[in-house]
Amino acid sequence: MPTNRVEAFSDGVFAIAITLLVLNISVPRSRPGRLGHDLAHQWPSYAAYAVSFVIIGIIWVNHHGMYRLVGRVDRVMQFTNLGLLGAVAVLPFTTALLAQYVRSGGANSHLAAAVYSANMTATGIFFLAAWLRLLVRADLRAPGLGSAETRVMIRRTLVGPVMYGASIGLAFVSAPACLVVYALIAAYYAVSYVTADDPSAAAEPAPPGGTAG
Amino acid sequence: MPTNRVEAFSDGVFAIAITLLVLNISVPRSRPGRLGHDLAHQWPSYAAYAVSFVIIGIIWVNHHGMYRLVGRVDRVMQFTNLGLLGAVAVLPFTTALLAQYVRSGGANSHLAAAVYSANMTATGIFFLAAWLRLLVRADLRAPGLGSAETRVMIRRTLVGPVMYGASIGLAFVSAPACLVVYALIAAYYAVSYVTADDPSAAAEPAPPGGTAG
Amino acid sequence: MPTNRVEAFSDGVFAIAITLLVLNISVPRSRPGRLGHDLAHQWPSYAAYAVSFVIIGIIWVNHHGMYRLVGRVDRVMQFTNLGLLGAVAVLPFTTALLAQYVRSGGANSHLAAAVYSANMTATGIFFLAAWLRLLVRADLRAPGLGSAETRVMIRRTLVGPVMYGASIGLAFVSAPACLVVYALIAAYYAVSYVTADDPSAAAEPAPPGGTAG
Amino acid sequence: MPTNRVEAFSDGVFAIAITLLVLNISVPRSRPGRLGHDLAHQWPSYAAYAVSFVIIGIIWVNHHGMYRLVGRVDRVMQFTNLGLLGAVAVLPFTTALLAQYVRSGGANSHLAAAVYSANMTATGIFFLAAWLRLLVRADLRAPGLGSAETRVMIRRTLVGPVMYGASIGLAFVSAPACLVVYALIAAYYAVSYVTADDPSAAAEPAPPGGTAG
Repeated sequence: MPTNRVEAFSDGVFAIAITLLVLNISVPRSRPGRLGHDLAHQWPSYAAYAVSFVIIGIIWVNHHGMYRLVGRVDRVMQFTNLGLLGAVAVLPFTTALLAQYVRSGGANSHLAAAVYSANMTATGIFFLAAWLRLLVRADLRAPGLGSAETRVMIRRTLVGPVMYGASIGLAFVSAPACLVVYALIAAYYAVSYVTADDPSAAAEPAPPGGTAG
Repeated sequence: MPTNRVEAFSDGVFAIAITLLVLNISVPRSRPGRLGHDLAHQWPSYAAYAVSFVIIGIIWVNHHGMYRLVGRVDRVMQFTNLGLLGAVAVLPFTTALLAQYVRSGGANSHLAAAVYSANMTATGIFFLAAWLRLLVRADLRAPGLGSAETRVMIRRTLVGPVMYGASIGLAFVSAPACLVVYALIAAYYAVSYVTADDPSAAAEPAPPGGTAG
Repeated sequence: MPTNRVEAFSDGVFAIAITLLVLNISVPRSRPGRLGHDLAHQWPSYAAYAVSFVIIGIIWVNHHGMYRLVGRVDRVMQFTNLGLLGAVAVLPFTTALLAQYVRSGGANSHLAAAVYSANMTATGIFFLAAWLRLLVRADLRAPGLGSAETRVMIRRTLVGPVMYGASIGLAFVSAPACLVVYALIAAYYAVSYVTADDPSAAAEPAPPGGTAG
Repeated sequence: MPTNRVEAFSDGVFAIAITLLVLNISVPRSRPGRLGHDLAHQWPSYAAYAVSFVIIGIIWVNHHGMYRLVGRVDRVMQFTNLGLLGAVAVLPFTTALLAQYVRSGGANSHLAAAVYSANMTATGIFFLAAWLRLLVRADLRAPGLGSAETRVMIRRTLVGPVMYGASIGLAFVSAPACLVVYALIAAYYAVSYVTADDPSAAAEPAPPGGTAG
């Protein structure tokens, strides 16, 4: 099966999940002159919105980057992708959970952050599973993606589930600290994506007249 | 009418329905230290989310597989497709109904499961209607899909409405048992799709240089 | 501007509006053994869902049919399209309003039906405006669509706003009667679309080898 | 990276955000004969819906117009685009906030309008950032878009953040006055888009046979 309809369907789910996040930010019912205070009070909603928005944005960018290197998908690739979409589609819930409890302290805040971390760990595992499938099945790769480049991508992708998995432990120490770690991992992926440009560029046919054209 | 815009519109509805499912999982308002208990308590929401997510995912995959074998659509095909989309779009409601009542026992749980089963039966019937239309109107088929292959697809597709229809009866015995049956039918379709790869592969023009290229 | 991105954006809005309709069907909180009664009680939600689903489906089909006859869009065409999308996107609200009040009788039910009728009249007017633009500006038409065929489409399209407009008056007599009229108009458009196949078929280049190939 | 998947993803977010706006219009629970009064009472919801719908529509049109002049996107362009999408996706919230408080008078109405103005200012800044990137990096431009045309677009685009920024100040004088200003800016952009047709037309290859064909 060619990849274009898989990408279109995935883009649809990403676009909807990223836009549904806003439903978690509610309009407060404020007494006269109190709206500023009430809006400021719900800062965790904005922080959670911003973090999840950037994370889904980066997942989309990385998904895009990965599928440029995929020639075609088999059933296993489709199920890794469906798993990834399921993990992304559940993010509006875990984001709302985090926003609701990050400030409450105690066991509730720890659990909410741990659930969010577990959700993110799952997205990382599904990305990893897709790259591992590409390592095993060279016929699914786009021309130009060799086993060496695939192993590089696997090492890069490993950082996600490992760090998010570690943040599950951190959640039971401090929920706000997890928010900071999520932002750091997001920054890592944004940078990682840039360095990852090289193999994907190599996988594409040179434009007529060369890259300087 | 060519099939590409039908597919794009259907993909949109599938992507939105699959992503709206998460709105059925609500963030509990928990007292300190009770969030774990409260989250565990709403397990039917997660089970229903998982089942419906996988089912819509499989419907998408099968829809994709079917339309690779469709050359063009006439008005009847469009209405079978609109019916299918209507049945899928209503799934977030029947999923929420099932999650709300599967555990309540008695008549309410039976009815909720029966409604869900009827919803799934409807999706199967619309798939069946589309295949029957393709059997009658050979000119709507893509080149390479013969009547024999179409009959094979009809026999495979029949399993859905028959088993989902039977689960309507089962619903009045046990709602949780229905959840198990839904998962089994989903597994059947996932496997069925794989075996169905052959006719669809045959229906596509051989790539230049042969399949080994 | 070419029409493909206009169509893609419109398809997105149609797909989302048609899928959001389900949010108007709520899961009742029923006492033991009362779920059947409570589900039956909210039949107006199902009727309104079904009518609006079919209507958006038909709008999509007609939109698709119209844009096959459009060669390119100018600013006026874009604003007629944005107006149409705005009227369709507001349908989940007017549908919920109709479902909530159709049974209440008296002034409230009349007003709710009138608002729904006005919403539908607006969609018809935007379709009409687009066809009128195509009549005036032949350069926006796809090859094969002459002025005569455009006038045929305008006469057919006129039926919509005229009948929906008349149903505004009917709303102040009986809201349930309006539901019946909406279904009849939908049936008319489904049939009208079929007869409209001819000019659109003529507008397309003959396939190589003829239609029998 | 080519622009087509960026455009498709952006179109998805725009289509969803524009359609989610309707969720802010709620069905009132009215006593007999009071529905008309209650519907009229929530006019700020309709006004805010209309303004935000038109604004997102114009953003989509301008986004479309801009990306016809973009040859490919680099990482910076992707982040300006993700920022724009984040600002658009948050509009359903700021729209609901404005609708809720525009009529309340006093500090609450001023703050709600200021938040909306700030949201719109942010969309303008992200558009501006994208054009500035195109000015600096000629290799990202589509053929036919020179530095002079890019500077023209920057001057036009500057109007948005400047006027929206000024409306932040106006918000603290009168919230309803801001609604009027938003409508005026929207009208400016609709006109600006028309005049902007020339460079974009020039950037496209002439059709075979000339424009008169």
